[in-house]
Amino acid sequence: MANEQTDDLPPSIGRLGADLRSGKITAEAVTAGFLQKIGASNPKLSAYAHVAHEQALQAARRVDALLRQGVDLGPLMGVPMGVKDLFSVEGMPTAAGSRADLTGLVGGEGPFIRKLKQMGCIVLGKTRTTEFAMGTFNLTHPTPWNPIDPSRKHMPGGSSSGSAVAMAAGLCAFSVGGDTGGSVRQPAAFCEVVGYKASAALWPLEGIFPLAPTLDSIGLFTRNMDDLDLIAAALGGAAMPAWQLDGARVGLPERVFCDGLDPEVEAAFNKVLDALKRAGAVFKSMDLPGTERVAETFGRGVPAEFLGFFGRERFMKNRGLLDPVVWFRASAALDYPADLYLHLLRERHGLQEQARRILSEVDMAIMPTSPALTVPADSVGDVDAVVAWNARALRNTQPINLLGLCGVSLPIPAAYCAGARGIGLQLVCRNGEDGALLAMARAVEAVLAR
Amino acid sequence: MANEQTDDLPPSIGRLGADLRSGKITAEAVTAGFLQKIGASNPKLSAYAHVAHEQALQAARRVDALLRQGVDLGPLMGVPMGVKDLFSVEGMPTAAGSRADLTGLVGGEGPFIRKLKQMGCIVLGKTRTTEFAMGTFNLTHPTPWNPIDPSRKHMPGGSSSGSAVAMAAGLCAFSVGGDTGGSVRQPAAFCEVVGYKASAALWPLEGIFPLAPTLDSIGLFTRNMDDLDLIAAALGGAAMPAWQLDGARVGLPERVFCDGLDPEVEAAFNKVLDALKRAGAVFKSMDLPGTERVAETFGRGVPAEFLGFFGRERFMKNRGLLDPVVWFRASAALDYPADLYLHLLRERHGLQEQARRILSEVDMAIMPTSPALTVPADSVGDVDAVVAWNARALRNTQPINLLGLCGVSLPIPAAYCAGARGIGLQLVCRNGEDGALLAMARAVEAVLAR
Repeated sequence: MANEQTDDLPPSIGRLGADLRSGKITAEAVTAGFLQKIGASNPKLSAYAHVAHEQALQAARRVDALLRQGVDLGPLMGVPMGVKDLFSVEGMPTAAGSRADLTGLVGGEGPFIRKLKQMGCIVLGKTRTTEFAMGTFNLTHPTPWNPIDPSRKHMPGGSSSGSAVAMAAGLCAFSVGGDTGGSVRQPAAFCEVVGYKASAALWPLEGIFPLAPTLDSIGLFTRNMDDLDLIAAALGGAAMPAWQLDGARVGLPERVFCDGLDPEVEAAFNKVLDALKRAGAVFKSMDLPGTERVAETFGRGVPAEFLGFFGRERFMKNRGLLDPVVWFRASAALDYPADLYLHLLRERHGLQEQARRILSEVDMAIMPTSPALTVPADSVGDVDAVVAWNARALRNTQPINLLGLCGVSLPIPAAYCAGARGIGLQLVCRNGEDGALLAMARAVEAVLAR
Repeated sequence: MANEQTDDLPPSIGRLGADLRSGKITAEAVTAGFLQKIGASNPKLSAYAHVAHEQALQAARRVDALLRQGVDLGPLMGVPMGVKDLFSVEGMPTAAGSRADLTGLVGGEGPFIRKLKQMGCIVLGKTRTTEFAMGTFNLTHPTPWNPIDPSRKHMPGGSSSGSAVAMAAGLCAFSVGGDTGGSVRQPAAFCEVVGYKASAALWPLEGIFPLAPTLDSIGLFTRNMDDLDLIAAALGGAAMPAWQLDGARVGLPERVFCDGLDPEVEAAFNKVLDALKRAGAVFKSMDLPGTERVAETFGRGVPAEFLGFFGRERFMKNRGLLDPVVWFRASAALDYPADLYLHLLRERHGLQEQARRILSEVDMAIMPTSPALTVPADSVGDVDAVVAWNARALRNTQPINLLGLCGVSLPIPAAYCAGARGIGLQLVCRNGEDGALLAMARAVEAVLAR
């Protein structure tokens, strides 16, 4: 596995489950271990915005008691996770990365988190998100430290920055994020973990602070595809048909997605293509539609949906508390006419239909998750720079949300990267084809790990 | 029945079916009779924008052939109907009341019309709608003549003006309309026929030119509740539980809905209340929410949804062809911000939930369909006057769409109206309670006909 060698990572979920059941460890001990590690690392990494120390230990003790009684809740029983601070979790605050008062805005714990808890997952705490999940970086709020470089703070990507860092630093067994334009896949790439953006309708979005309801989807961060497979299967979301790369038809959307790559990204991606070709993949050049609608969709539509939910009055009243990037981005929607928004939505449905047809001619499409390497956090210092960085870092992921697809970002192993870090490979499939996507990602991961 | 005595009306649908099956008449003869009547009356009444002479006769002959072969398609077999010119019907033009080129805008025949045709209904033609169904009256397009006064042209109401007039003048056995803010119920009141606005989700809206997809619903015009019951049952949309007025809990939303009624309307409505009370109805004063959101919903939200569909560019390009009322109303949305629109939608969902709770404490709510009597068509001469007339004529129906309810307008019989004409009684029930609504409307019709 790509990251098997990293010292930071905890045991795989499968191994953890086996050890729990054999009595080699207890859920309480596992949880305490994670909490201890969080206590030691979080002051620097800032992955968690809220650590649920007592609550997590109590939940772990309940799991241990059940196991002693012979009750088995399945493969996620006793598995500690981090949850992006957009998700309501009973007994924990939901700040959505903001200093504004959000009272009454987010409902109670939703069915997605409830299901994970019912299966015995233990919530270690709430992981940091950029404010309202709007973009990858805030100027005035804490940014988690990307573990790929302990000596200098690099961008972790975002908005699910805390979940990505928590996973990469081994501060959870897996973590939950939300993905509206790449908020899971892009930080997964930068932090060198697996990031999965599910098809939007796969899991219910209730109990989650919405950024843009027409584009939001739930995502997961895991150490590898084994763990992701196990969680997706437990959630009932993704069947995993057997699949192999030999003879697979792989779409290569060169226009836009392969333009202007950082040289390190381009080199690593080309080496990956070679490896997949050697494994029997058959490439097919293709064109994904909709890229010319990204700017309006994310520059105007997304903030309009955010404001429609948050309320213009509350937005104005909280100006002093909001990060300047959020203020700038959301303000761009204040004069965006409703008919243009509705027209954009209509066009989007047409584009999604086109994408569905185009992607039905291949098994998947692949591209670099981000065209750029991550950069030092202090190199992006004002609103203009953040906005430019957002646009570049999310260029290859935003169109996937716009087209209603599902996607995975796999970390490209060091052997392909000539010393560069944080490069991801994005695989995408049609809306609803999550099972096939995960099977292919598993096959690709295996080829790259050879 | 309220209108049984009117000479203009054709036999009831039940009678027509019996005569067809007994061989007393043929579908072709019935259809030819309607076409002849249309030929004679339509030059004055202008109810039909397109008469499908040959197509209708062919369809009638097919029905007759099937009947001779012993094939029975059920109670709507051989029943001639008028269809509002927003609905796509195979082989007929769809102008949506406009002179603009609508090529590519409306899809093919939708499932609602297809089902009626499969059950043997015969489409006599397309009935006139105000342009894009936006409001009750156009200044520069033909307006049908309300049959209640043959000597002077009165407003028929709208937007389904042609369907209402066709039904009232006996130019079809029933007619189909669309209702976004009262476009079926209000012309039904003015033209003294039964008008039914179904719950929006009851019947599919594909193949219909949309005015405002979040508020649009399909409606029917019939001579009486017997016919409406028969059609709704055939469409599988409305079960009809037995129901009686004795002991029924009837909500009376006095605020707004009973304010500032024309004296004739107030007098007739009060007499109706007395009659229902004598029949055992128990009145409960209530307040329906949302009336303070009507102005923004219909003044800004509806035109925004229209423009989002129609396209701002096409709108601008067609300025010279559009009715000045349509131009004025749709232009009001050009600077309507998307976030306010989305916020309005969110509020609407809350209001609908409130209305559901409030209406669950009664069996139905009643009110005058329109606070005003109809007026001579030539008394409303400029855009300002049309807009003011729209707002008044639709005041009691628009909130019902906003709240997502279903409703029926029953003609209040002459005995209650002291010589005034075109007064309707609106009954409303919760979203999805169409079966109960129709049962209650039937009971009320019976009491008023005594």
